[in-house]
Amino acid sequence: MMKNKNTVRFMYTFDEGRASMRSVLGGKGANLAEMSSIGIPVPPGFTLTTQACLEYLNSGDSFIEDIWKDVISGIGYLEDKSGKTFGAGKNPLLVSVRSGAPVSMPGMMDTILNLGLNSEIVQAMIDYSGNERFVLDCYRRFIQMFSDVVMRTGTNRFEFALERKKNELGISYDFELDPGTLRVLIDDFRSIYRQQTKSEFPEDPEEQLKMAVKAVFNSWDNQRARTYRKMNGIDDSLGTAVNIVAMVYGNISEDSGTGVCFSRSPSNGEKKLYGEYLLNAQGEDVVAGIRTPRDIDSLQEYFPDVYRDLVNYARTLEEHYLDMQDIEFTVEKGKLYILQTRTGKRSASSAVNIAVDMVSEGLIDKETCISRVGPDQVEMLLHDQFDPKADYSAAASGLPASPGAAVGKIVFDPDEAVTLAEEGTPVILVRPETTPDDVHGLYAAAGVLTSRGGMTSHAAVVARGIGKPCITGCEGLEIDLEQEKLRISGQELSKGDILSIDGTSGIVVVGEVSLSQAEITDKFERFLQWCDETASLEVWANADTPEDAARARAFGAKGIGLCRTEHMFMAQERLQVMQQMIISDNTDVRREHLSKLQSMQKEDFKEIYGVMEEEPVIIRLLDPPLHEFLPDRQELKRHLSELEKLGAQESDEAESVRKTLEKSIALEEANPMLGFRGCRLGIVHPEIYEMQVRAILDAATELRRDYRITPYIMIPIVMLLEEFTILKTKIEGIVLQYKKEYPDLEYRLGTMIELPRAATVADELAREADFFSFGTNDLTQTTMGLSRDDAEAKFLRKYVEIGLLPFNPFNSLDLKGVGVMMEMAVTKARSVKQDFSCGICGEHGGDPRSISFCHSLGLHYVSCSPYRIPVARVAAAHASLGKQ
Amino acid sequence: MMKNKNTVRFMYTFDEGRASMRSVLGGKGANLAEMSSIGIPVPPGFTLTTQACLEYLNSGDSFIEDIWKDVISGIGYLEDKSGKTFGAGKNPLLVSVRSGAPVSMPGMMDTILNLGLNSEIVQAMIDYSGNERFVLDCYRRFIQMFSDVVMRTGTNRFEFALERKKNELGISYDFELDPGTLRVLIDDFRSIYRQQTKSEFPEDPEEQLKMAVKAVFNSWDNQRARTYRKMNGIDDSLGTAVNIVAMVYGNISEDSGTGVCFSRSPSNGEKKLYGEYLLNAQGEDVVAGIRTPRDIDSLQEYFPDVYRDLVNYARTLEEHYLDMQDIEFTVEKGKLYILQTRTGKRSASSAVNIAVDMVSEGLIDKETCISRVGPDQVEMLLHDQFDPKADYSAAASGLPASPGAAVGKIVFDPDEAVTLAEEGTPVILVRPETTPDDVHGLYAAAGVLTSRGGMTSHAAVVARGIGKPCITGCEGLEIDLEQEKLRISGQELSKGDILSIDGTSGIVVVGEVSLSQAEITDKFERFLQWCDETASLEVWANADTPEDAARARAFGAKGIGLCRTEHMFMAQERLQVMQQMIISDNTDVRREHLSKLQSMQKEDFKEIYGVMEEEPVIIRLLDPPLHEFLPDRQELKRHLSELEKLGAQESDEAESVRKTLEKSIALEEANPMLGFRGCRLGIVHPEIYEMQVRAILDAATELRRDYRITPYIMIPIVMLLEEFTILKTKIEGIVLQYKKEYPDLEYRLGTMIELPRAATVADELAREADFFSFGTNDLTQTTMGLSRDDAEAKFLRKYVEIGLLPFNPFNSLDLKGVGVMMEMAVTKARSVKQDFSCGICGEHGGDPRSISFCHSLGLHYVSCSPYRIPVARVAAAHASLGKQ
Repeated sequence: MMKNKNTVRFMYTFDEGRASMRSVLGGKGANLAEMSSIGIPVPPGFTLTTQACLEYLNSGDSFIEDIWKDVISGIGYLEDKSGKTFGAGKNPLLVSVRSGAPVSMPGMMDTILNLGLNSEIVQAMIDYSGNERFVLDCYRRFIQMFSDVVMRTGTNRFEFALERKKNELGISYDFELDPGTLRVLIDDFRSIYRQQTKSEFPEDPEEQLKMAVKAVFNSWDNQRARTYRKMNGIDDSLGTAVNIVAMVYGNISEDSGTGVCFSRSPSNGEKKLYGEYLLNAQGEDVVAGIRTPRDIDSLQEYFPDVYRDLVNYARTLEEHYLDMQDIEFTVEKGKLYILQTRTGKRSASSAVNIAVDMVSEGLIDKETCISRVGPDQVEMLLHDQFDPKADYSAAASGLPASPGAAVGKIVFDPDEAVTLAEEGTPVILVRPETTPDDVHGLYAAAGVLTSRGGMTSHAAVVARGIGKPCITGCEGLEIDLEQEKLRISGQELSKGDILSIDGTSGIVVVGEVSLSQAEITDKFERFLQWCDETASLEVWANADTPEDAARARAFGAKGIGLCRTEHMFMAQERLQVMQQMIISDNTDVRREHLSKLQSMQKEDFKEIYGVMEEEPVIIRLLDPPLHEFLPDRQELKRHLSELEKLGAQESDEAESVRKTLEKSIALEEANPMLGFRGCRLGIVHPEIYEMQVRAILDAATELRRDYRITPYIMIPIVMLLEEFTILKTKIEGIVLQYKKEYPDLEYRLGTMIELPRAATVADELAREADFFSFGTNDLTQTTMGLSRDDAEAKFLRKYVEIGLLPFNPFNSLDLKGVGVMMEMAVTKARSVKQDFSCGICGEHGGDPRSISFCHSLGLHYVSCSPYRIPVARVAAAHASLGKQ
Repeated sequence: MMKNKNTVRFMYTFDEGRASMRSVLGGKGANLAEMSSIGIPVPPGFTLTTQACLEYLNSGDSFIEDIWKDVISGIGYLEDKSGKTFGAGKNPLLVSVRSGAPVSMPGMMDTILNLGLNSEIVQAMIDYSGNERFVLDCYRRFIQMFSDVVMRTGTNRFEFALERKKNELGISYDFELDPGTLRVLIDDFRSIYRQQTKSEFPEDPEEQLKMAVKAVFNSWDNQRARTYRKMNGIDDSLGTAVNIVAMVYGNISEDSGTGVCFSRSPSNGEKKLYGEYLLNAQGEDVVAGIRTPRDIDSLQEYFPDVYRDLVNYARTLEEHYLDMQDIEFTVEKGKLYILQTRTGKRSASSAVNIAVDMVSEGLIDKETCISRVGPDQVEMLLHDQFDPKADYSAAASGLPASPGAAVGKIVFDPDEAVTLAEEGTPVILVRPETTPDDVHGLYAAAGVLTSRGGMTSHAAVVARGIGKPCITGCEGLEIDLEQEKLRISGQELSKGDILSIDGTSGIVVVGEVSLSQAEITDKFERFLQWCDETASLEVWANADTPEDAARARAFGAKGIGLCRTEHMFMAQERLQVMQQMIISDNTDVRREHLSKLQSMQKEDFKEIYGVMEEEPVIIRLLDPPLHEFLPDRQELKRHLSELEKLGAQESDEAESVRKTLEKSIALEEANPMLGFRGCRLGIVHPEIYEMQVRAILDAATELRRDYRITPYIMIPIVMLLEEFTILKTKIEGIVLQYKKEYPDLEYRLGTMIELPRAATVADELAREADFFSFGTNDLTQTTMGLSRDDAEAKFLRKYVEIGLLPFNPFNSLDLKGVGVMMEMAVTKARSVKQDFSCGICGEHGGDPRSISFCHSLGLHYVSCSPYRIPVARVAAAHASLGKQ
């Protein structure tokens, strides 16, 4: 091959190049050369290097002659390979010319196909192919493309001429144009070219080629390309390569064709060819949708040799690229050409199956396997989905608050949801928004739809926690609770009508959409185990009930990072005791009620310990403000005025309601989130935490025959070292009492880091505590000054819309603020105790991006809702691999 | 003098010692020696050194003989000086023996007086003094003191014996005991000594002295002293000295006496002796209160020589110690002895006057002058006080929410407060708590008293801001608003009854207490100017009105650090326009209302600029959530149901109320503190900030003939760089429009740092902003997760009570948390712009301890309410001097 004086080569044939030569050959050229190098039948071609481009741009137009020898030599190579002749002969060689920079870049020159045609060669090709319409159509297209791409004329005038012609003849499709009409059109096109460019359309194929190559080189320096490079930080000195490839035709004869195939099934990963093709057709015929492509299996029948070759080449490409391939091919007169290959897109379950299979096949290692499946894909696997093949139209859309799809009858009343669900009827609970009073309805429903509330509204949080599909803030929805009707995109629906919701996308559909079911297959299970082996972060669960705990273990949780005790007071008979306790001002009466609660909580803890055996269970002492346990104030007032109407204002019942109301008012707070909760309660009313600690220790010691349980006790809302130490002293005192009977009883005492103030004294806290758990919901609220309940709808959604924030910080950790607090806490804690135990139990514990950050901080575990565990396990493994 | 073999001296006479020898002579010995050294007639005395003590304790009892030679030599010195003889002669020498460690320390041995008496010497002294009762009483006391202090018998049995004797004789006072009875008592005391110690009371004075010295030495090592040293980190190897001083007697004759005087007036600082004395009396007679002491002026008449000497010595001591002295003196037979001198305690105004006078007199420099007057004392000067001489008893007490005292008639209704105040009647506004609706009443009242709310409740904040005395959270107060009555410590009071309150102490008094008035004197003014010269922090003011601004300048503010614009919307006619704006969903209508508000705000700004001339005025754009401008929701509901009762539910009025109610509900937030406020509003509703910026620029440019005003605009609640930059771009655009007409218009744009998130990105913000102002009220709320409105009453008060927190963090900065955030912000900001402008405008800006921290951070100014400015100026100067 030719070399210039500095021995820099300006041209490589596809036989000479390699994938590694991307900077010289550009992406496209390097890939085609790579295929060629492993024996794949790529149409013959060669590449003018990026260096050639740069030298040309530096040296001016004259330099083209220095390169031209290489081009001529390349054309000679194409002629040898194809047995065709460029610009002459019975079987003329046409080429495509296209740019290919080292970095994919819009704004660069487009493709020119069929270069090398002129009036004479058109006739030779008609003679050779016997397909006049095809050849004339190629010529027409070539003139337009050349004119547009090389001469920058645009395509409008060509399109008008074509439209006019079709209108005259009353036809709809290009392929209906007969040869005679095409010849007239070709004349028209040439005269358009002449008018636009003040020159004749070049007849000499070599002249055509030279103009095309120069146009590609120049396109590197055009305004659009430069702006794009500047915006994306791409080096101006890269240059672009030019690929010149022999044309092959799938529509030249009946033993020609074109198609697309995957090396394995993109929907389930099965190891066989999957795809479709058309005989006597070009790629664009498939897109035009005029003919229905055939399934790739039938190719075996029509072209057994081609099919066998295709199977072999697919295998070769997979083994070479070590991943499932999406392959474009063309057959020209019985000969198979591979035009392009790339990694194939696939469904989530296909991704898992292919990755796991490839490990078994020895193609890839486990790390590569893990890196092939993203946490987001895993999430798709865990929830039912609208069947991708289903045909439906969205009636409205809201916030994708909890993923998965559901179909059911509309109900408005939570109690009715329970009744119908018990009868086995799936229901969609539709409410303006939900409150803790509606929780039984959420549990019973197949899915939840609210017209108000954000991604972090009550409905959203509960639904994600229990893995129910949920859409919130669906503003196109009007609900009339009294009439039990709703209006959506102009339709009025009533209770009992069918609705489908997709909590993954936020789409609401009237009527039934078929669903595709989720399942955890053996391969998926194996995949998740490999993730655990790779991850340095453990995945724990937020679980408050034995059911949650069992679900969490089934999903692979290694412990419980947050067991909230407040939910345990919410069952009806307990809530009454709790309320009695709260409204009493007498410590003895409070203690009496608390002792009832103590035995109830003890049983809860025993059940959870039983499920988790000896895995760690971090129990958080009471956190929410007490008024959350009292009935709604409006409700109480109504109750009271009813009693008064009945003349029962002096009754014990009225007295009790009145007292509850008074207490509720006394406990009222302007900002309950920053209020009298967590350890603040534990310090002012020590009897509550005392009861809880006893319940925990009772549970642990009563199970001692079966398990050796080490209770993990966690104190919420700590802001001062002194808060922690005062409670630690109290708890130590209680433990000492138990140790008299159970001398080997051990326990761990930790604190949540939920306030910036706790982060600033994390070193002091770490000296006294056994572990930290980052409560990033509250830490986000306080660090950013955001009320989770309000911010979304009021302004946060707008912030994300206008790009002030990349995402809602309650969904994915705000690294520049909350992350800084976390880092401060970890660094300070570990400055006093190396490898001090730290984890996270906010909702961020299930978010892949946040998990990656937790990994980089060196946390020990992330704790998330049971349904997020598989996602978190994958994210943790990805974090260990340095991917996200 | 004697030296031991190592030339370490064990004894120094008062003539030999100096103040600098504290470690050798102990504090007391060194001070008496110092006085002696400058010619002050101190009774003769000498000191056994701390080294003597340590050697004795190391070497055991035998060592006392090594020291004894020095003691004998010291006694010889006393005899020479006093002309008396120890243990013999006509005029016997008695001594006092007392310990004196280098560091003041309780638990050490007490004083023994009159040592050297025995039966024989008693008679000699009776003969010499002619005062039998006096001498016998000395002896009785000596036996008891010696027994108690040296032999550790305690005093109970002696006291019983004395009481029994007085009961027998039916007398009340010790001095009524006649010589015969005293002789019987002395015999009783000796036999008590015998029974308790199994030994005879020592007759030999030298033996008495030796026992006393050993007792002092041993007391260094007793349990109480050791524990005290351990707890206070005092070195065990210091040892204690022993002071042995010749007794002098003010009660030995009619030309004797005793007294106490100050070198200047402790109440107003006047430069003349101030004090009192008794003739023929001992110090304890003054304390016993049986005789009324005479004013020191009259001493001139009785003892002109003594008075002249006293004046001279006082001057000498002042010039020596460079501060006002509190002097104890005794005259024995016409001879003046100075027994003790120390820095005199004084009132706040005296402190200022003395310190300023002493600078004029050349005694001290300005820095010393400043260091002599604490910010707390200055605070006392600024408010009326209960007259220190007044006689009153507290009926109840609450939180000292805003300092100063007030007397007035009780009113419950803010409107009535205004009416009465306009008539010139001072009133105390009494409410369960106050709301923004009551503000006119707070302004009108002389003082405010609430039964609920904390130090940071509405009443407290407003009262401090306007310098009104206020007591909040007065739990002993029951208010019946309907009956217009209150109950306090069992008394029922009605509207119009007189109440006195002291907001400095929190004390409430029924009836009138006379007040002492505050005034800013010329000397005080001079003092404050010196403070400004010394301080590196400037003091600015938080001022929202021209009146506030004028007050602030009068108090010495160098700028306005926080001009809140929201208060400007609160006047009745403006509030209506504001409400119209808020409830409108139509942007055009909103703009129309805003343009009305714009011209109103412009006038406000012009007035404030006019007052401040060209001093900086930082105007904060709208901060509170919009619902704060809407009427109370209950009120709206009541209004609506009234209109419905009148059948006017379809009226325009009803429609408007309904709309307001709807908007109020739509704007409701669970945690408004973390809600839709500050720049979040400014971003979602850009027209509001746009209006405010125009009003500011209009004001500045309209005043351009008189002043060249550079507007300072401040954006609240910034958490993201992106929030700041989006608003900066908008504001820059508006300024550009004005620049067309006023090309030299300049402005500064800054941000508040109120959220931890802002501190974490302070470097990014500093690149874009011109200044920061720390809003430490909100920064405390978010860093600590505390709701200022709720926390105090719910748990913060308890935290302070039980010592979890040293003080309410809303009053004095929480350095370990909020301080860390501030430091992070300053450090980050100055890493990108050296000396980047930072100030503070939270309420902490007026707290001395917080000011000291701001100084250490290198802030440029503190901004506080006008009434706190003098306090802040002093605190800033103290901070520069490294004091607090």
